[in-house]
Amino acid sequence: MGKKSAKLPVEEVDVSAVKYHQPTTVKAPHLMGLAHKMFVWLIELPILGAIILEVYKRMNNNFNKVLRNTVIPEKPMFRPEFPPQEKEPGVVVLDEDKEPTIRLASALQCLPPYDSSRHWNHDSPPFLYWTIRDYAHAYRSNLTTPSILAERIISAVEKSNNRKPPMSFLVSFNVDDVRKQAAASTQRFSEGNPLSILDGIFMAIKDDTDCFPHSSKGGTTWLHKLRPVKQDAVCVSRLRSCGVIFIGKANMNELGLGTTGNNPNYGTTRNPHSTDRYTGGSSSGPAAIVASGLCPAAVGTDGGGSVRIPSSLCGVVGLKTTFARIDMKGLICGSGTVEVVSPLAATVEDTMLVYAAMGGCSPVDRISLNPSALCLPNLSPSVNLDILRSTRLGKYSEWFHDVYCPDISTKCEDALNLLLESFGCKITEITVPELEEMRTAHLVTIGAESLNGLYPNYEDGTCSKLTLDTRVCLELFRTFSAVDYVSAQRLRRRLMYYHMEIFKKVDIIVTPTTGMTAPKIPLSSLEHGETNYEVTGYLMRFILAGNLLGLPAVTVPVNDRKI
Amino acid sequence: MGKKSAKLPVEEVDVSAVKYHQPTTVKAPHLMGLAHKMFVWLIELPILGAIILEVYKRMNNNFNKVLRNTVIPEKPMFRPEFPPQEKEPGVVVLDEDKEPTIRLASALQCLPPYDSSRHWNHDSPPFLYWTIRDYAHAYRSNLTTPSILAERIISAVEKSNNRKPPMSFLVSFNVDDVRKQAAASTQRFSEGNPLSILDGIFMAIKDDTDCFPHSSKGGTTWLHKLRPVKQDAVCVSRLRSCGVIFIGKANMNELGLGTTGNNPNYGTTRNPHSTDRYTGGSSSGPAAIVASGLCPAAVGTDGGGSVRIPSSLCGVVGLKTTFARIDMKGLICGSGTVEVVSPLAATVEDTMLVYAAMGGCSPVDRISLNPSALCLPNLSPSVNLDILRSTRLGKYSEWFHDVYCPDISTKCEDALNLLLESFGCKITEITVPELEEMRTAHLVTIGAESLNGLYPNYEDGTCSKLTLDTRVCLELFRTFSAVDYVSAQRLRRRLMYYHMEIFKKVDIIVTPTTGMTAPKIPLSSLEHGETNYEVTGYLMRFILAGNLLGLPAVTVPVNDRKI
Repeated sequence: MGKKSAKLPVEEVDVSAVKYHQPTTVKAPHLMGLAHKMFVWLIELPILGAIILEVYKRMNNNFNKVLRNTVIPEKPMFRPEFPPQEKEPGVVVLDEDKEPTIRLASALQCLPPYDSSRHWNHDSPPFLYWTIRDYAHAYRSNLTTPSILAERIISAVEKSNNRKPPMSFLVSFNVDDVRKQAAASTQRFSEGNPLSILDGIFMAIKDDTDCFPHSSKGGTTWLHKLRPVKQDAVCVSRLRSCGVIFIGKANMNELGLGTTGNNPNYGTTRNPHSTDRYTGGSSSGPAAIVASGLCPAAVGTDGGGSVRIPSSLCGVVGLKTTFARIDMKGLICGSGTVEVVSPLAATVEDTMLVYAAMGGCSPVDRISLNPSALCLPNLSPSVNLDILRSTRLGKYSEWFHDVYCPDISTKCEDALNLLLESFGCKITEITVPELEEMRTAHLVTIGAESLNGLYPNYEDGTCSKLTLDTRVCLELFRTFSAVDYVSAQRLRRRLMYYHMEIFKKVDIIVTPTTGMTAPKIPLSSLEHGETNYEVTGYLMRFILAGNLLGLPAVTVPVNDRKI
Repeated sequence: MGKKSAKLPVEEVDVSAVKYHQPTTVKAPHLMGLAHKMFVWLIELPILGAIILEVYKRMNNNFNKVLRNTVIPEKPMFRPEFPPQEKEPGVVVLDEDKEPTIRLASALQCLPPYDSSRHWNHDSPPFLYWTIRDYAHAYRSNLTTPSILAERIISAVEKSNNRKPPMSFLVSFNVDDVRKQAAASTQRFSEGNPLSILDGIFMAIKDDTDCFPHSSKGGTTWLHKLRPVKQDAVCVSRLRSCGVIFIGKANMNELGLGTTGNNPNYGTTRNPHSTDRYTGGSSSGPAAIVASGLCPAAVGTDGGGSVRIPSSLCGVVGLKTTFARIDMKGLICGSGTVEVVSPLAATVEDTMLVYAAMGGCSPVDRISLNPSALCLPNLSPSVNLDILRSTRLGKYSEWFHDVYCPDISTKCEDALNLLLESFGCKITEITVPELEEMRTAHLVTIGAESLNGLYPNYEDGTCSKLTLDTRVCLELFRTFSAVDYVSAQRLRRRLMYYHMEIFKKVDIIVTPTTGMTAPKIPLSSLEHGETNYEVTGYLMRFILAGNLLGLPAVTVPVNDRKI
């Protein structure tokens, strides 16, 4: 039961009177080892299990309050629907109907001129990530070849596997396949016919995205046996048509259902900045591979922070793309209403290049969702400075500073001040109402959709091969009713309205990406995983609108580097 | 648990090999009186209730088989998405952006010339329903006035209420309001300024659609107290702008959750053709009012046959409109993905006129669904004959003849043969695969969405004021999980594909509307209702594609009249 309430229609809410509420700390034990096993055994019991989870949801009272006892006047919005947008100034539209290589050529026009001196004119340059244009320059200047680099990468991957503890970057790695792709690329260069700026660029791809001849395990030990891979996912085939070399399938949280990168099946990926810490997840492998400098870019997926969280914890750039902006055919999570495929890279410019090559929505989504055009900012200095000056940044200060590690918000604040001083961007104080509703609606949506894809395996017991933390998630998702799901979609329409109102006043909402820096990996979590919803809560604190509303979001490292 | 299976991707299914499966008879008792009360008490128990319903679902094995144990490869389709359609020949497009009166004028152009001799030149004409154009002719020829007719209707409604048993046409009737509307219309005629062909036309509106000053009870005893009506629904205000006179709110199954018209709160509407029989539901009042000749047309809603079933059982025309074709603002069921507002009338031409006036989708749906244009067939004889000759009718014979009362399919077959002989239409044998899947997916969808709108009232106990059969439905809907809901949407995409393939070969799928003629009303069901899923199954046998896929469907009476 519980107290019934009714929300005002969203147009009538006085947002200026909305107060910030700190999220209630999740009342759930941190589970590892034997206690973890016992807990899973209990909640998987037919009737008692459901009762325990119902009690858990009542203790964490918001679920019932938000979804079950409140009249939500808005109609459900089952997928993010964006009202048609006006073209922004200083933006270049890429033609979806053209080949990826043609879009890439347009994307290159958006970048500032390439400065080869950054890397090449020093005897011992300071540590800098090599960018796609650095590799392209090297290949075109005969400084190296893809085949030479392939050998270095193969040896680096082997070294990373053999160290103690292993880095666990990849779950699938095929030396012959890497050599074959590199030889083909080297051949194209020797013939003077590289396919594009991405030719010979090494990339890793998350294990939930089909990349032939690799299987797609989604971080599990069994899913690939039920779902054989016969061809590349659409986004992979687009990148391949530009000459990208895929080094293998990058590690991830099992089924993407985690935020730390813990994976007892293939080893927990280690954070290259500090190998006793998590990378964040679920795209743990892609983020760590980029952060380690092994590849300039990687491809991940994000439906609940899975690109943004590990990008943030590993200090790389992650672009969570707009929902439906990229065709999801050939992905394990390709049927949901929150997941997108997204590039990670060491720099913003490389993220842009990979995005340009991968972009383009599916034919079906183009009819039913018609997302706005695929576009990139023009970064040539003359255009860029004007745009930066007129950019309106929105900041919800109480939320911005509600973090576990105050260092995070301080550093982010410093970065904002630097933007202000250097370019004169404007910062406007905003309020984002109903954050708790957004969290709950997202949880129900991604939960139901993830479990749905697995259900027949769930029913026949195959899912007992999953790790303990995944099983805790799935048991929780099983308690979501059809009514909860529809209520979550009503909240989606409501929250979309609030955000569209905010975006009349500002261009970008700025927040930290996570409320916590990379947590230490508990040794006892390595073998059977861990369930720690407090950490999850902090890691997911700020990524809400990108999740439920399909809005684009970019994570950029904030450090002491000058802009 | 249960045996896991996987469906082939829909494009790979060999439809020619699909076999017809007679729907399994629902294994559930016919409940009335004390047994009904006991059953509701049992299933509303916190844990035992859920177990009983789970057993029930397992006995009616299809639910788990269809939704839980089968891998469905298609992505969910959360609302009916129609691929863009080519304009059909002989069809007139109505402009949604224009006023309803202007659309009506275009609609009139689609009709064959009016023949006033049909009614007016006989001393004692045979029984014929008076059409909208008959009323219009009478008003314009000063044969009568809306005010004169208002008195006759008021006295007829009173008579229908006072007879034993009462007809129970209306749940809300306001004599002063009817007189006021009629006087205003009479005044317009006396000034020579009628608003449109619909000026002075009496219509009834289902109790789930807002029509000020009436409340919208949705057939319940309490919903109007929580949901006050402040203005007309969009479709009502469109009709009003054409001069329609609303006589009151027509009876319905409580919350639309029934197919018979049984309503213990306001009395069960009697079928004018045989008053000891049901009208069908849920739009029982609208159908009976039209069938009785009280009004030439009425407005109902249909999400699971609620216009088609009572139209069929009462022998009138019901047009279930395409999903999202008419704005649903101001309807109790305006948030779902299956319900539409739809006209009922005694003739096809009157259905067309009311549809033309009501039509036009909501601004939001125009962006996100972009349904194809609002159009009407041109019925002028020269155009019409050519069109009829080239119309391809699709018939799935095994399904067509799978009825409880063989009279139904025989009469329908006769009507088809008459069409063939008179106009040379072609009949093509077709197969509609996965009918059971379509039934189950629809049940989960409409169930979850209906319960969702009520949920906060459900949780605080208000729903215990509902009738027993509604409570049985809602308890069943409560067992649907979020995962079931998403699976149902996967089936929706799959079934849409099959239907779009069928519509490449034929223009119309012809079936009987129901598998059963109007059932007798059990006396013991009058006070507390009844739950009879066998009857429901027969009444809903053929209405599947209109339900889940939002396809338009028209029910026309088939009798011994000549075409």
